[in-house]
Amino acid sequence: MTIVSNELLGRPLLKIYQDTEYFNFSLDSMLLASFCKITKTTNNICDLCSGNAPIPLYLSLRCKSKIVGVEVLKHSYDLGIKSINENNLQNQIELLNDNLIDINKKIGNHKFDLVTCNPPFFKVGNNNINPNDNKAVARHEILATLDDIVKEASLLLKTKGRFAMVHRPDRLMEILEVFKKYRIEPKRLRFIYPKMGYDCNHILIEGTYDSNPGSLKIEAPLYVYNDDNTWTQEVLKIYNYEGVD
Amino acid sequence: MTIVSNELLGRPLLKIYQDTEYFNFSLDSMLLASFCKITKTTNNICDLCSGNAPIPLYLSLRCKSKIVGVEVLKHSYDLGIKSINENNLQNQIELLNDNLIDINKKIGNHKFDLVTCNPPFFKVGNNNINPNDNKAVARHEILATLDDIVKEASLLLKTKGRFAMVHRPDRLMEILEVFKKYRIEPKRLRFIYPKMGYDCNHILIEGTYDSNPGSLKIEAPLYVYNDDNTWTQEVLKIYNYEGVD
Repeated sequence: MTIVSNELLGRPLLKIYQDTEYFNFSLDSMLLASFCKITKTTNNICDLCSGNAPIPLYLSLRCKSKIVGVEVLKHSYDLGIKSINENNLQNQIELLNDNLIDINKKIGNHKFDLVTCNPPFFKVGNNNINPNDNKAVARHEILATLDDIVKEASLLLKTKGRFAMVHRPDRLMEILEVFKKYRIEPKRLRFIYPKMGYDCNHILIEGTYDSNPGSLKIEAPLYVYNDDNTWTQEVLKIYNYEGVD
Repeated sequence: MTIVSNELLGRPLLKIYQDTEYFNFSLDSMLLASFCKITKTTNNICDLCSGNAPIPLYLSLRCKSKIVGVEVLKHSYDLGIKSINENNLQNQIELLNDNLIDINKKIGNHKFDLVTCNPPFFKVGNNNINPNDNKAVARHEILATLDDIVKEASLLLKTKGRFAMVHRPDRLMEILEVFKKYRIEPKRLRFIYPKMGYDCNHILIEGTYDSNPGSLKIEAPLYVYNDDNTWTQEVLKIYNYEGVD
């Protein structure tokens, strides 16, 4: 179990179940859930590739918006439901055990103000991957590709709605092309570095659906570790969540 | 005059003439000249939008390659020639007073291993810009657009030759599209931040002509100033140039 805690309050803010034998809840999800922009008019949120629902759970700390999560793997879905119940968030978060492709037909075409996604990072390529392996499905584009995900986000989003995603820097070019293909204009980019002096290992990107091109902002870098391998103040602050936007 | 010095040697390495009434030699050029990759097989270099030739001059510290600079403004060109003579680099650097469009027909189609450029950053748009204003020509895309520049670079480069450019982050999307259009595949990106905690204000990008897509690397951020507004160690090191690649 991962706990997002507020040390000032002396109690955990969230309890998130995970199974270490499967794909773990990761820091990426926390960073994405903290990065995406939420405003007073963000009423409906959809999280694709939800896994055990860390993003919907974290977002519940930031807003009162309705959140729908979509997760194809039954095992991860079950853990997500357990966490939602444990935190008494059944009224705010709805988790669906379904493939994200065409999910807009079930949960609402152009209905959402914000779509988030921590997708599988790796292409299938020529690797010999077992499609029944849950961990492989979470890491590799077996059941949904980057194109499928961004297409579905564009079908879920209202005009001027935002899509926020975490991914790997070596796929940045492809990500920008697919965003363009589905008319999601990148507006914010933030690069995550393991520590100072190292190459970037993750990117945070947010785009606006059906928006004018231009005015992309590249925000201050986010460092995960200090030189002595302890977490940076910024990451600690994200875990020990305090305050609302 | 700007001086690139080597304090260990106790003497200036370069003297670069500039006219403060015109467009000044800028830090951007130094950072680009330091960023671009030079190998043992980098024999021919071309610098577009050379201005008073800071990039060719700085590159002469890093290699013995032949360098051709192209600058359309007579006043900047004259200053460049003065600096080349002052530093006795007439055998290594050739500066041309010409427009870069179609310059490959004069200096060599697909002849260069490396093309560098610190271009005008701003679109002309609806601004009322005087095309006879030298400063405006250096800052705005009056005589050459981003498309013209990248197209010309692709015509100058050998297969697998590299194009390195400094630009502004709000035009990153457009830059990546134009690179793609002219088959220059981005391989290295480095973001420049004025200081820690601030948004990026310049980008360094290097791409390879006629290369396979993928394997883009986002390098460690480059900070210009420390919190107390002094230059960072990295920038000081670039100015006090030491050593060769």
